[in-house]
Formats: sequence, C-alpha cells, structure tokens
Amino acid sequence: MTPLHGANTIGGMPSATGEQHFESVNPATGATGDVTYTDATPMEIHAAVHAASQIATADSRFNREQRATFLENVARELMDLGEPLLAVADWETALGRTRLASERDRTIHQLRMFAADVREGSYVDAIIDTAEPQRRPVPRPDLRRMLFPIGPVAVFGAGNFPLAFGVCGGDSAAAWAAGCPVIYKAHPSQPQTSELCGQAVLGAMKTQGLPGGWFSLLHGADDAVGRELVRQPELEAVSFTGSLAGGRALFDEAAARPRPIPVFAEMGSLNPLFVTPGSLTMRSTRLAEDLAASVLLGMGQFCTKPGLLVVPDMPVTDDMIDAMIRHMEQHPGGPLLNRRIRDNLRRSLDSTLATGDVTCLTGGTVPDEPGWRFRPALLQTTAAHFLADDVLLAEHFGPVGLLIRCPDMTAMADVARRLGGQLTATIHIAAGETGLIRPLLDILQRKAGRIIFNGVPTGVEVCAAMMHGGPYPASSQAQASSVGITAVRRFLRPVAFQNTPPELLPGLLQNENPAGILRLVNGEYTRKPLPE
Amino acid sequence: MTPLHGANTIGGMPSATGEQHFESVNPATGATGDVTYTDATPMEIHAAVHAASQIATADSRFNREQRATFLENVARELMDLGEPLLAVADWETALGRTRLASERDRTIHQLRMFAADVREGSYVDAIIDTAEPQRRPVPRPDLRRMLFPIGPVAVFGAGNFPLAFGVCGGDSAAAWAAGCPVIYKAHPSQPQTSELCGQAVLGAMKTQGLPGGWFSLLHGADDAVGRELVRQPELEAVSFTGSLAGGRALFDEAAARPRPIPVFAEMGSLNPLFVTPGSLTMRSTRLAEDLAASVLLGMGQFCTKPGLLVVPDMPVTDDMIDAMIRHMEQHPGGPLLNRRIRDNLRRSLDSTLATGDVTCLTGGTVPDEPGWRFRPALLQTTAAHFLADDVLLAEHFGPVGLLIRCPDMTAMADVARRLGGQLTATIHIAAGETGLIRPLLDILQRKAGRIIFNGVPTGVEVCAAMMHGGPYPASSQAQASSVGITAVRRFLRPVAFQNTPPELLPGLLQNENPAGILRLVNGEYTRKPLPE
Repeated sequence: MTPLHGANTIGGMPSATGEQHFESVNPATGATGDVTYTDATPMEIHAAVHAASQIATADSRFNREQRATFLENVARELMDLGEPLLAVADWETALGRTRLASERDRTIHQLRMFAADVREGSYVDAIIDTAEPQRRPVPRPDLRRMLFPIGPVAVFGAGNFPLAFGVCGGDSAAAWAAGCPVIYKAHPSQPQTSELCGQAVLGAMKTQGLPGGWFSLLHGADDAVGRELVRQPELEAVSFTGSLAGGRALFDEAAARPRPIPVFAEMGSLNPLFVTPGSLTMRSTRLAEDLAASVLLGMGQFCTKPGLLVVPDMPVTDDMIDAMIRHMEQHPGGPLLNRRIRDNLRRSLDSTLATGDVTCLTGGTVPDEPGWRFRPALLQTTAAHFLADDVLLAEHFGPVGLLIRCPDMTAMADVARRLGGQLTATIHIAAGETGLIRPLLDILQRKAGRIIFNGVPTGVEVCAAMMHGGPYPASSQAQASSVGITAVRRFLRPVAFQNTPPELLPGLLQNENPAGILRLVNGEYTRKPLPE
Repeated sequence: MTPLHGANTIGGMPSATGEQHFESVNPATGATGDVTYTDATPMEIHAAVHAASQIATADSRFNREQRATFLENVARELMDLGEPLLAVADWETALGRTRLASERDRTIHQLRMFAADVREGSYVDAIIDTAEPQRRPVPRPDLRRMLFPIGPVAVFGAGNFPLAFGVCGGDSAAAWAAGCPVIYKAHPSQPQTSELCGQAVLGAMKTQGLPGGWFSLLHGADDAVGRELVRQPELEAVSFTGSLAGGRALFDEAAARPRPIPVFAEMGSLNPLFVTPGSLTMRSTRLAEDLAASVLLGMGQFCTKPGLLVVPDMPVTDDMIDAMIRHMEQHPGGPLLNRRIRDNLRRSLDSTLATGDVTCLTGGTVPDEPGWRFRPALLQTTAAHFLADDVLLAEHFGPVGLLIRCPDMTAMADVARRLGGQLTATIHIAAGETGLIRPLLDILQRKAGRIIFNGVPTGVEVCAAMMHGGPYPASSQAQASSVGITAVRRFLRPVAFQNTPPELLPGLLQNENPAGILRLVNGEYTRKPLPE
C-alpha cells in the first residue's frame, strides 16, 4: 500500500496549498487519524474543474471501449488494495470488515456492470429518422439523435457507503461510463478511505495513459469546499448522497448560478413500511425479526432504513412489538459514523419525544463509552397522533424505528397520504389481501420510487430495473435513479444531427451500425444496419 | 363557433371572479379585441391545480387507450374549429392564414403522433429483472420498473406558435400523453385563440366523460398569474416556451419552493450558422436567399431563427451580403406579435449598435404605421469585435441577423467557443471540407441540441429523432426535448416494483406482456412474454 499523503488530487497530481487541516476520527474510540488532510482551496477547486473541462471534448482516449476498460481497471485496482483498504475503511467507519468486504464486492460489481453497458452501447438511446426528399410541402430531413456526455461532474461522496458510493462508487462509475470527468468531493469522515480508493483510480488512469483532468479528489471538512465546487462555471452536473440539509444547500447553490446545472441529490426518506392485519396474524414472529434487523442494519445508516412501521392495532401487535424490542435489545449496538450523525439523531429523537405523543419502548440513549455510540431505539405512537403533528414527519437517520398503530386500513391510507416523497414504501400482505391494499398502493405509487412487497427496503439490488430515487425530499430529481444502469442517464444529454455527412456522424449513428446497438429507426426498434 | 366568454376555465368550468381585465390587440392595426378577459385569481389558480391533483391518481379513465383516443379527439375538434380558428389566430398574431393553417396541421400531427406512441406503449421504458431465489449470499428479488405520470403540469403557452405550442400544442399533448392533467396559462397576446382551442379540449373531454380537473385554462396579462401557478404545492412540473427572462423567473420560482419541481423552459438561442469558404464559393447566391428567408420566417419570431451568420471574409462575401440585403429589402415586412417583442427588439438592437463595432446594413427601423411593425435588419461585424464584447451575445428576437466576418477557420472556432448553450448550430460545407470543420463541430456539439448541415435551423421536424432543447440558456434542462415523442419523458418518472404479486403489477409489467411492448428483460430487449 502506497503511503497516504493527505493532499488533494488536482487533475491527477497531489496538491495541498490550503491552510485548513483536519484528520479523520475513529467512530468507535474517538481517536484521531495519523494523516492530516488539507481543505482544497478555491484555486485548487477551480483548477480541478478547469482540467476536467479541458478534456471533456471528443477524444479518442474516451471512446466506449476505453471507458469500459477503464472501469474494469478501476475494479481490479480496487480489489488489489486488498485487506489494507478494508482495515482503513473499518477504522474510519466502524462498519465492520464483513460488511465492508461485501460493499467492496458490490462496488466492483457496479463498475463491471457499467463497463458491460458502455461496451454494449445501446444506452446512447439512438434514434434515426431517415430523409424523405419527396415529401410535400417540404422534404423530410435526415435526423439522427443520441446521448453524449454532459461534461464535468462533481460527485459528493456518501458517508454511509464509503465504498459503494465512495470514490470508485456508483456515481463516479456512472459519470465515467457516460464519458464525463469526475471531481470527487470526499466525505470528511473518510479521507483515508477516499485517498486509498483514489489510488485505484490513478492506477487505472496510468495504465491507459489518461490525462489528469479525468479525475480530481478534493478534501474539505468545511462545507465551503463543496459550495465553491458547485459554483464553478465549467461544471455541468452534481451528484450527491447525504442529508436533506446538505443536498438542498447544493441544489440551491446550483439553481442560483448564472447558468444553473442539474443536481441529482439523494437525500432524506422515511421509507414507510405497512403491515396488513392478515400479514401480522400470519407472520408476527418473522416480521418482528425482519423489521428489527432492517432498522438495525449498518446501525440504521441506510438511505432505505424503514423509519415508519405502520401496523394494525390488534392483540397480536403487542406480541410482535415485544419480540422487536427483544431483538433490538440483543443487538450489541455500535458507534455511528461520526459526531454529526450522532448529535443530529439525538436532536431529532428529542424533538419527536418532546411532542408528548410518542413513547420510547427501548433504547435512544447515549452510553457513557468512547466514540459515537447510540442505543437503537423503538418508538411508538398512534395514527391519530401521527396525523396531528408535522414534527413526526422528521427523519431519524440511525437505528430508530417509529411504530404507528392504526385502527384500520383507512387510517393507514391517511398516514400514507400525509407523507412526502420517499425512496421506498413497503407493504406486507397475506394471500387474498390484494383488494384490501389497492387504495394504499395507489397512494404510495405517487409518493415513492420503489414499492416492496413482503420484504424490507434495505438491500438495494444493483440491476437495470432498480429505481433508487423518488419525489422530493427523497431526491432533488424524481426522474433519475442513482443505482443501476439507468443511473448513467443523469450524465448524458441528447444531440440531434440533421442531414449530416456520414463521415461526420458518430459511429453509433452511421448506417452500418457496426456495434449492433439497438436503435429506433423510422419507428422500429432494430439492431440491424440501415438498408442501402 | 361557440361565442367566446372571456372567462378562465377552472377544472372544466368557466370562472371569472377576478378584477383585473385585458383584451387582445391586433398587431397589424393596434385595434383592441371585443372580448374582455379576466386574470385568474390566486383562488382560481389554486382550485385549478387542486382539481388536477385530485384526479392525478390511477383511474381507469386515464388508461393508455383512453388517452390516445382523447388526443385524437382533440385533433378532430381542433380541425372542426375550421376557418374561424385561423381567422381569430390571424387577427391576434398577424402571422397569416397560410402559416397558421400549416401550424394547425403540425399541431394535429403532433397530437396523433403522441396518440400513436401512447397506444403502442413502449414509451414506458419497462425494465424487468426476474428473481433468482437461489443466489448467494442473498436471493435476487424480482424487480420491474416503468414510467408513470409525474402529476399536474403547468404549461405556459408560446406567443410565437399560437397553435403548435398553444392550448392543444406539443407541451399539452406530451403531458396528456404521459397521463398528466394540464393547467394551461394562455399567452396574454392570444386569449381568444386560446379560448377557442380550449373549446376543442373541452369538447374532447365531454365526448369521453373526463373529469374537469384534466384541463384548466388560465388567463393573465399580469406575470403574477404565472408565478402564483408555479408556487402551487400540488403542481409537479412546468413547461414553458418564451424569453430567457420569463423562463428564468419561473425556474427561480420553482427552485425556491419548499418542494422544488422541474421546469422545462425553452428560452433564448442565437442559433449560430457557419459558412465555410468552399460553401460560400460554391453557393453564394443560394445561401443569400436561404439565409435571408430563414431570418425573415414568421418575422424572425422562431426559437431557431439563425441570429448569428458566421461567414469567411472573402471577395465573394460582399456579393452574398448584397444579395441578402436585396432579399431583406424586398420582404414586405410585417407586424411583430406584440408591443413587448417590438420594444425588446428595438432595445436589444440599440444596445448592439451602441457598441460602435456593428454596422447596420439595412432595416432596423420602426415605420410610422399602425401596429407593431419593424423593418427586418441585417447587421455586420468582425470576429475580432464579436470576441471582444459580451453585449454582442444578446439575442435579437425578431427579423434581425448579425453577420460575423472571420479571417479564417480559427476565428470561426473562437466565435463558436465564445457562445453559450444553443438550440441549434448550423454548418454549411462543400464536398471535401469535412476535415476542415471537424474542430468546429467538436465545439458546437458541446453547445447545441441540434446540428444542421447545409440547411437552415428554422423548420423543426416533428419526429422521434428531433432534439429541441439544449444547454442553458437555450433551455433550463439540457436533457429534455420539447419536440418529438421523447418530449413525453419530461412528464414521467420511474417506479420500481419489488417482489410484487402479479395481480398488483401494472399490466405492462406483467409476465404476459399482452400489449407486446418492447421491454428490457434480464438484459435482453424483447417484445415477448416472459417464459413460464
């Protein structure tokens, strides 16, 4: 493992000219890391985006095959970092080696998935309408359209997925797949993990001789670094995973630019989970176990943690809740990722309990131990209370679940109607209850990006059909997914070519279709060349 | 023809409770129309959006077949309005019956195109990844994703296309095709045309028994009506065609909402047109005629009017320019659409000429005649002047073209590099010049939504491969087109269903695929049902 230097990487080269410094902190012990990082300066930020902009033109080094190879090389370099990467990531996050190893595997899977998709090529959404010179009153021109890279993309790393949404994570991979240079802003809790992953990227760039502008890595404990990045005139898009406050601040910054740019921010979500009477009756033991496990997974620091558990008020409900309490109390607990998350969680929990309408059934305290520990909490209220108080719509980011007891399905629908946009909504039903829950489903379908049946929302499958996003505040752009191959579309925009000489057309739009991609040609989807 | 009432249409019913009134004005004579219109009040605006929101749920009346039939019915009703529609539109716009008849035909073509696309169904972009229960360490879930309507859409009508971007125009048609109710804000220059087209919509709704919330029509001479509309909490998206100032105001309003919503604003564009030395030498006479005609079309009031004519400085250049001047002076001229456009055009022209670096070769004056007349203007400057003064980057919306004489292709590339986002960029080349213009093409491809060769940018073909949009300020959302079937995507968002009982899945995601739409199933595009 190459020693860590603590500098930013600007256009491929280390740079640390700033005067603000920070170290990462071990969440389990509160100990300070032994590498000092330097906040990127406005000059360095400008240089990073400018270097990206300079290479964001048509360049033979950035053709599809080269990009696919690059993604595969990053995957290999990431794997080659081996155990030391997991050790550093565990030191900075306390998420555990097992979880981090599986997260690394997911990261590698994502890189290879985008590589395969870029190599196949149909993602460019090619549409061809050929000319009709004889048409009256005016001839129909030849029009051919496909997607092109949008330009330099700023990626804000997610603290809760240090690898899968880290430097080599899904957002970077999607941007590179699209053909966009990445300026990555590292999460200040994980500078060492970020620097290590950055080594993997630089290694892959070196193998292919890619120019430095293809990747920059910025550090910054101060939010000003991120705001300065979003203000850069040559930046074309922003992706972000994190808190509502953080995402909205970047969204506002981007919207206020002289030339606004899109912000794909994946932010807060309550991820409501509804249980029907039939399902509760049939499966209360299993539900108690599954729901507790989903709330506790990764110390509740999942974007898709089920924060609201909407259950019918029945005799068996208390049994299920008792079982959930036992599961949660058996959990060893553990540290949260950083002080900010711990303090925000305590604050949001205090606000919820201060309403007087919510009971804390277990946990919610901060043990007198080192690090950012927190005892997982299960809260309980009624539909009537929930519907009467907006405070209860706040997210608790961490291992906290709020049970909402409902007298009937009408109350459940009322709870659903009260919710804002969500990444996910989950419904547990028994056989024969599809008619019963259809009204609820109709409501949830208008609010969520993904609907799950008889499962838990945590565990986001990386596949083409995934939708990870949703109406605000789940994300700032409800039309985009940050997981799966469709995530690449965030960083593409269409250009149409009219009556263009064949030799000036991009290869994927030429008659021959040598790559055999799927194209919509005169209204028919086909992989064939155009007839002569 | 049903008499015009001058009221707003709120959830299908006439309403005119406001106290601010206005009439349309004949641009050719300055005469005032004989129907008085009433600005929509905040209460009416709220009622319109609320009525739309109430019906924006799953409803069997809004299935694909019903929407396709609705679009076709609107087309028929619009045609049935016959000559009186053209007479009213001509009175309010002075665009002429011939142009308006062809615009009506385009509008009908658009409605039918969207109808066909909705009926076919593949636009929902269905993606299915089936379960792998045996996968380790965790089973792969069944995931199925498709696009759903985003909800109530506000459409701001374009003054320069009273029919094709009017009440029954492309934006409304795309929203209805997507399954979204429309709240249409009429352009204050064309309230009568808008009310007539609204009759066509209401007629089509009546035929099918659609609820009133499906369509509202708001009038307002005051910009406050539009801002109030964009602020409505239940609104989900905005589309707009018009000026940069108007579009940006709505964009800012939407971004500042507690819950931001997307704004698809198609705004200003210079539509640069480049002529190579070879092309000028070969075709100077034809170029003079075509360029003049494109600048003059519809009195220059096209989003895609070529505003910058970038030409090589050669002996033949003066001949071409002389011929252009003759064509422009032979043009009978005509009124602009309204006083605001005329006054803005005079102001922008004055600013341009005040730089001292631009010569007015012909026109640019306001004749002492009734109405909003203006003499088409041809301006000239050099690349050096153009590159030195930001004032010359301003749009002249109207029949004004600015010639930029360039000493060589390097100067042309410098001019291209200086430009902001554009709807279109046009290149005229002769045979054998493809190598010469490749650097220019690389620059323009990063700036424009559509590249045209050896033609003019005016005349936007309505087809699948069209891209009408571009980087800011051409549009507020460079990833969307407002023309062609892809325009429907602006009003859709994906929802994924995980492990969902077949009877609760939307029909298009069920195994059987009865509609035979194209779906991406486990990585393969197919119209077949899923294997048992």
